[in-house]
Amino acid sequence: MRDAYHDDLDALTQSLIDMTHLVGGAVGRATQALLDADLALAEQVISGDKTIDSLYHSGEAQAFELLARQQPVAVDLRRVVASLRMLSDLERSGDLAVHVAELARRRYPASAIPAELQSTILEMGQMAQRITAKAGSVIASQDLDLAGEIERDDDVMDSLHKQLFRALLEDEWTGSIEEAVDITLCSRYFERLADHSVSVARRIVYLVTGQHRDREPLPTAL
Amino acid sequence: MRDAYHDDLDALTQSLIDMTHLVGGAVGRATQALLDADLALAEQVISGDKTIDSLYHSGEAQAFELLARQQPVAVDLRRVVASLRMLSDLERSGDLAVHVAELARRRYPASAIPAELQSTILEMGQMAQRITAKAGSVIASQDLDLAGEIERDDDVMDSLHKQLFRALLEDEWTGSIEEAVDITLCSRYFERLADHSVSVARRIVYLVTGQHRDREPLPTAL
Repeated sequence: MRDAYHDDLDALTQSLIDMTHLVGGAVGRATQALLDADLALAEQVISGDKTIDSLYHSGEAQAFELLARQQPVAVDLRRVVASLRMLSDLERSGDLAVHVAELARRRYPASAIPAELQSTILEMGQMAQRITAKAGSVIASQDLDLAGEIERDDDVMDSLHKQLFRALLEDEWTGSIEEAVDITLCSRYFERLADHSVSVARRIVYLVTGQHRDREPLPTAL
Repeated sequence: MRDAYHDDLDALTQSLIDMTHLVGGAVGRATQALLDADLALAEQVISGDKTIDSLYHSGEAQAFELLARQQPVAVDLRRVVASLRMLSDLERSGDLAVHVAELARRRYPASAIPAELQSTILEMGQMAQRITAKAGSVIASQDLDLAGEIERDDDVMDSLHKQLFRALLEDEWTGSIEEAVDITLCSRYFERLADHSVSVARRIVYLVTGQHRDREPLPTAL
């Protein structure tokens, strides 16, 4: 009985890790779709979110069954409750990747991102993809050093977010209002993606140490 | 024993309702601070978020204790799991009200919202406040008609969100890039506030009917 129980817990953890892989891939493709104005790739991200949502629903059902049948206590219960929260973070991360892809689709055949900002947006997209992958590794390894790295990556993301806004507000910037709106939203989506990985990392830190890192407020956007 | 248990469940529900009151008030004040460039009011929203966060943490502890000590099953377990998710939605709603207040503070002593868009922003802010209050009523009453109303309110919010973007993109609009950035973010915050109330309402619908309304995707932003 005890073994089946830990198998179930491990299966739930594996669902979370699978979600980080799918989300990371979606973020990478959405970024590419945005920069290259690649409609097919954007559509792929949008339709692929169904798989992330179904992992979310099945993960929640797994957690519910665990609570109902096994009635875990102490650290095991903490693990299930933390998993419920991480499922939400990752489901929402999938939605944010979809929002990036929708920006690409809405502006097709143009690219939503003007040439002078493509490198910053690429950097943000890559960081969002990498930080999501690291969140998966932290779930798998419970590595606290890596969790700390996610906090530092998030600081870099916040700097990129601010840098982008500064570029928009410079006198030399000659783009349109439409571009400014799209870039603002896009930057916000990437910044939120990083926040969700931070939230996942903090849940794991709490599981391992009993210390609530998320009592510290997340750095606010802009 | 059974009575103490239901008292605990009711206390958890009350925490959720208290959170909707605090969030609704914060949204109303943040909107006012934004429109009137009222720095003191903005600061009040920002510092007041501590109370919402502490209700979130104590609510999560209540839920955890319930699971650990009472080991609920079936509908009671569903209620606790739903409460965990609703706690997250409301905590995040508090953060969004803070973001609106931060916009007001950042642009003080100017108002971040130009005169021609003040009425639309007011309408969005009032809608966000009202839909949060309705989410509280749905938690308290489990009224499915009211839950349906929240879905329709969210459609109105999405229309307002789109209307604001259209206004920004019209040729006649002569505002600055900075204003466009602020309005984009502000509109996004209000739209997300409504989404979180929809998420709360759908959790209650699921509790009452066993039907998963949230398998339908939320209307996408913009």
